[in-house]
Amino acid sequence: MKLAIVNDQLFPQEDLDPIYFDRGLYFGDGVYEVLRSYNGKIFALDEHLERFAASMAAIRITGIDIGTIRERVLRAFQAAKLANAKIYFHVTRGSAPRNHTWAKDIKPNFFLTISQVGDAAKEKANGIAVCTCPDLRWKRCDIKSLNLLPNVLARQEAMEKGCEEAILVDEAGLITEGAGSAFFAILHDALHTAPLAANILPSITRHFIVKAATNLGMKITEKCLTPAEAAAADELFLAVTTKDVVPIVKFDDKPIGNGKPGRWVKALMTEFLKFTV
Amino acid sequence: MKLAIVNDQLFPQEDLDPIYFDRGLYFGDGVYEVLRSYNGKIFALDEHLERFAASMAAIRITGIDIGTIRERVLRAFQAAKLANAKIYFHVTRGSAPRNHTWAKDIKPNFFLTISQVGDAAKEKANGIAVCTCPDLRWKRCDIKSLNLLPNVLARQEAMEKGCEEAILVDEAGLITEGAGSAFFAILHDALHTAPLAANILPSITRHFIVKAATNLGMKITEKCLTPAEAAAADELFLAVTTKDVVPIVKFDDKPIGNGKPGRWVKALMTEFLKFTV
Repeated sequence: MKLAIVNDQLFPQEDLDPIYFDRGLYFGDGVYEVLRSYNGKIFALDEHLERFAASMAAIRITGIDIGTIRERVLRAFQAAKLANAKIYFHVTRGSAPRNHTWAKDIKPNFFLTISQVGDAAKEKANGIAVCTCPDLRWKRCDIKSLNLLPNVLARQEAMEKGCEEAILVDEAGLITEGAGSAFFAILHDALHTAPLAANILPSITRHFIVKAATNLGMKITEKCLTPAEAAAADELFLAVTTKDVVPIVKFDDKPIGNGKPGRWVKALMTEFLKFTV
Repeated sequence: MKLAIVNDQLFPQEDLDPIYFDRGLYFGDGVYEVLRSYNGKIFALDEHLERFAASMAAIRITGIDIGTIRERVLRAFQAAKLANAKIYFHVTRGSAPRNHTWAKDIKPNFFLTISQVGDAAKEKANGIAVCTCPDLRWKRCDIKSLNLLPNVLARQEAMEKGCEEAILVDEAGLITEGAGSAFFAILHDALHTAPLAANILPSITRHFIVKAATNLGMKITEKCLTPAEAAAADELFLAVTTKDVVPIVKFDDKPIGNGKPGRWVKALMTEFLKFTV
């Protein structure tokens, strides 16, 4: 007889909701996106959907089209009536008895949540502290997959050290990105960030920050920095969908600049917001 | 208002079962084990529980003790009445609104399934084909975590090439292990397998195979092989809980030995079974 135990209770397997057999649970076999709205307008929906399509293609999830997902995102946004909403969604390969390989006709599962975006005003005004942490992730971090355990462990470690984010450092001693954000440095009025490759996520906020920096006449240098180079930068900041630009004022316990958000970071914040209206 | 969409249906978030907010789904934030029984007797239960405790400790899951898990495994085994059962279980960090960091008081979720173990008689008698695939996994493969997307993609690729398993090759060009198995070669009557390190799982079947090989008077060499070295081996095989020893007769399309399971592999199979009674 095929049985299951959920927490402490025994069931015939057939009595369980298919969610218990979701390949997202068994393998992290799925991809996700996070979007936000500013004052009633979803930001960069097309860009997020395009990246999501690329993530699905990279892990070969088929059977759900982007048009359907767009309609669901808009439906949830309309129903929630939140001016500043955070929208999370994922698609997993589907539910099936546990087996690494999948059947051709497996049907993907879709899941979305929408809620009020968290208030980041204080972080944005005062800046945050970050610390470095080894980058233990897999070799395809350009795919926004549900395999996020190393990110979770790094962020938790950072939080326990009183930091808001973990800055990941690879085996070559170079910074890749944050555990859940893109990383930027300003040195001699030039914006520095890691080049897009398989080891970092093609951040959409990064895309708009590069645009904002170009509008401000800044030079853009795509290069990975060492922690020592970052600690000596004039300014540092993170980019993340839910908070856009977040100044970093402490890096591995060393103050950055005068310990307050710098002029370029403030200018980039203002410039970025122009894209959101 | 906090809303959710499951597949195509809109819900208030509070109406959903907590399983939808399982950190196993959001992050693959959990660890698992697979056990089997031979003729009514669970094999190496203590060893599996010990490894599971180590996996939980490595990712800092607390709040569930091994005694409770042992009791649930035995309860399911007794209820299922299967002589040759396959038992899968995982523990995730728990259910909570999505956030990388976790709350101290989060309660872990437990899930177990039990069913008849698959029949591997044909594979064991005739041997299987395998192919190599880049090892894209994270840097802590010694933890039996739910972050298994690279394993899934490798195994699927292998299956589509007509192979039963993907043999993972790291950036240095060395074989680590199979996507879901340990890997062994026999060269000049000596057993070769990768040394235990952060890049492979401490396989329990491997442990008993080393014991069996010792009983047979074989020399054991802990060393990673290149695909060329493996292809030139006298014999190759996999070790996996559900099937114990599985001979490999084709490696990247090249026949191994005379294309049939060799004498050492057969001897190891017989020797291994002595541990299971």
